[in-house]
Amino acid sequence: MRKILLIAAIAVLTGTSAMSQELTNFNFRGRQRVVSPQVEGDKVTFRLSANHANAVNLTGNWLRGAVVLQKGTDGIWSVTVDAPSPEIYTYNFVVDGVSINDPHNFMVQRDGTRYLNMLFVPGERSENYFEANQRGTVAYKWYDSEILKMNRRLTVYTPYGYEKNSRTKYPVLYLLHGAGGDEEAWTSMGRAAQILDNLIEKGLAEPMIVVMPNGNPSQQAAQTLGLPTSNLNFRDPALQNAYVKSLCEEIVPFIEKEYRVLAKPESRAIAGLSMGGGHTITATNLYPDMFDWICPLSAAGNSTAEQINALKKAGVRLYFLACGTDDFLWEGSVTLDKTLTECGLDHVFFKSDGGHVWANWRYYLNSFAPLLFKQE
Amino acid sequence: MRKILLIAAIAVLTGTSAMSQELTNFNFRGRQRVVSPQVEGDKVTFRLSANHANAVNLTGNWLRGAVVLQKGTDGIWSVTVDAPSPEIYTYNFVVDGVSINDPHNFMVQRDGTRYLNMLFVPGERSENYFEANQRGTVAYKWYDSEILKMNRRLTVYTPYGYEKNSRTKYPVLYLLHGAGGDEEAWTSMGRAAQILDNLIEKGLAEPMIVVMPNGNPSQQAAQTLGLPTSNLNFRDPALQNAYVKSLCEEIVPFIEKEYRVLAKPESRAIAGLSMGGGHTITATNLYPDMFDWICPLSAAGNSTAEQINALKKAGVRLYFLACGTDDFLWEGSVTLDKTLTECGLDHVFFKSDGGHVWANWRYYLNSFAPLLFKQE
Repeated sequence: MRKILLIAAIAVLTGTSAMSQELTNFNFRGRQRVVSPQVEGDKVTFRLSANHANAVNLTGNWLRGAVVLQKGTDGIWSVTVDAPSPEIYTYNFVVDGVSINDPHNFMVQRDGTRYLNMLFVPGERSENYFEANQRGTVAYKWYDSEILKMNRRLTVYTPYGYEKNSRTKYPVLYLLHGAGGDEEAWTSMGRAAQILDNLIEKGLAEPMIVVMPNGNPSQQAAQTLGLPTSNLNFRDPALQNAYVKSLCEEIVPFIEKEYRVLAKPESRAIAGLSMGGGHTITATNLYPDMFDWICPLSAAGNSTAEQINALKKAGVRLYFLACGTDDFLWEGSVTLDKTLTECGLDHVFFKSDGGHVWANWRYYLNSFAPLLFKQE
Repeated sequence: MRKILLIAAIAVLTGTSAMSQELTNFNFRGRQRVVSPQVEGDKVTFRLSANHANAVNLTGNWLRGAVVLQKGTDGIWSVTVDAPSPEIYTYNFVVDGVSINDPHNFMVQRDGTRYLNMLFVPGERSENYFEANQRGTVAYKWYDSEILKMNRRLTVYTPYGYEKNSRTKYPVLYLLHGAGGDEEAWTSMGRAAQILDNLIEKGLAEPMIVVMPNGNPSQQAAQTLGLPTSNLNFRDPALQNAYVKSLCEEIVPFIEKEYRVLAKPESRAIAGLSMGGGHTITATNLYPDMFDWICPLSAAGNSTAEQINALKKAGVRLYFLACGTDDFLWEGSVTLDKTLTECGLDHVFFKSDGGHVWANWRYYLNSFAPLLFKQE
């Protein structure tokens, strides 16, 4: 049956070159397509075809607990809930105690080793998370690290027009992920390419290159590739801050050689979330002259007055500290804000609602990227 | 609990920069990690933690029917089966009638709108599907199509050394997917980057650029991005072969402008599977002078003697026709082989076991890529 339908489909398609719209709604089993999730006004409906299941629940990162789905006479379970405010959310179904992805929703993101369905709720807050009209290139490249003794993958965003404007040199934002993430975290969960595309298209941000390395020093690349991890002993004091050293001594020179970049402190920015915020703070403390634009987000890390004074002396142009008031790392950001104030370093302490979540990190990127690389 | 563990983890990690190995095996729920699938010798074991399920089955593309898992006293269902021959396979669990991904296996591939777990069985046949030591760059770029009235995404592989060898110009393989696929199909299911990396590293294939466009003319990009599809009416005769025209009149010039390529027929190859094999045949019939290396794979399409003679006159250097003897398109390949023979066009008819499957398309790419762009 499937074979016959496929033959028929290919016969039609190759004749006319028209295929995708038909195929999008094509169901090889001949059933009506189940739509899930379905956002309508201020409600969203979730559906799952599971005729033999005993119980189906919905879990979502905006829900306070599991929501029970009801079974219809057609074997399709469903529930309608209030749509949360505009943002990107993640959810799963739980079928007879087993957490599963929604088979009707192909929008999935990977968080470390977990796959989660995405729910997009459109609105002002989330408008830059959707595709822009003019889009940059996202490339997965490999660099050789002498420090980490590995060939390692990083993600590089080049803005729309990079190829055409073949003499233009660009500033670079180094954008770092948190614990459990990898070099795909910011483009997948963080929507970094869409945010930059939209901000640049609207004239709100300077065209820039964004480099998103893998911040796990024992990894060559995201675990999905199944590459062996490092044999190095990272408890060896000689390897302290090895990843940050690789970032500043290997990745920055690699990018400045491979791409048309403005290779100077006023054209280098560094930002990172959580562990990546810690890496941001460590990098700027160890290499105070390297980055003029510094953005620790929900950061796991801190600086002494001496370290802040070194940055002040180096001439930092933006220190953008962001944290959610419910974040378990909030106190650390308050302490850092206090030190910055005491040292007299002009800075932004960007406070948001909520905690240690991607909704905040997307919002922070969307908020600080327009400030970067602006002429004074 | 989770929050506390996360704080502890981050506290340890940011202090030492050592994180990923610990985190890989980190289970926030404190349970022992379930390993699935586990290949041991000639057996493979699948496991699923599902204490409240009534029935768990395994489906796989190498299995003739569903295999029943047995529940252990610990609530973990498992089954051990004979490992299939070295290749990449896909599988799912079926829990109380609902098909799900294996939550313990983060190796997942997307086939159109379906996500499938991958089972890697190592061996000679599959050795080039694993990561090489020297890896090229995979980039997602966008080109403007006047013909299709859209900004469209394509995937570009540049070989290891492309950036360093800044004066070297490279030949280009245009590699086309089948119905239901998109611009990620060849890099995801087809392992195209790994195959080229390995072949080039071993000195078996010429360093080349590989361009993998989206062959669905109404799509801007893979459905995962959720972009609106085209409003064009592809039944309009004026839009006949619109995608193939965009490929030859827009994508080829775009690539030859954006990359350091050898822009001549003897440095252009075209290959495609199924619908993409049809596109390959259509492209070489409409533009017989454009590609000197032509590889229709399990192709949905055919050529007349007149069309083959035009290719012969144009001086094709390789015509590599491949099909599985169980493929439902086998007869079409036999017919094309016959026409090629009758026209006296030297060609390869590469016959394999099996049918219309990615195992064959990986195998074909691994087989014909070493033949491309060789000096006579």
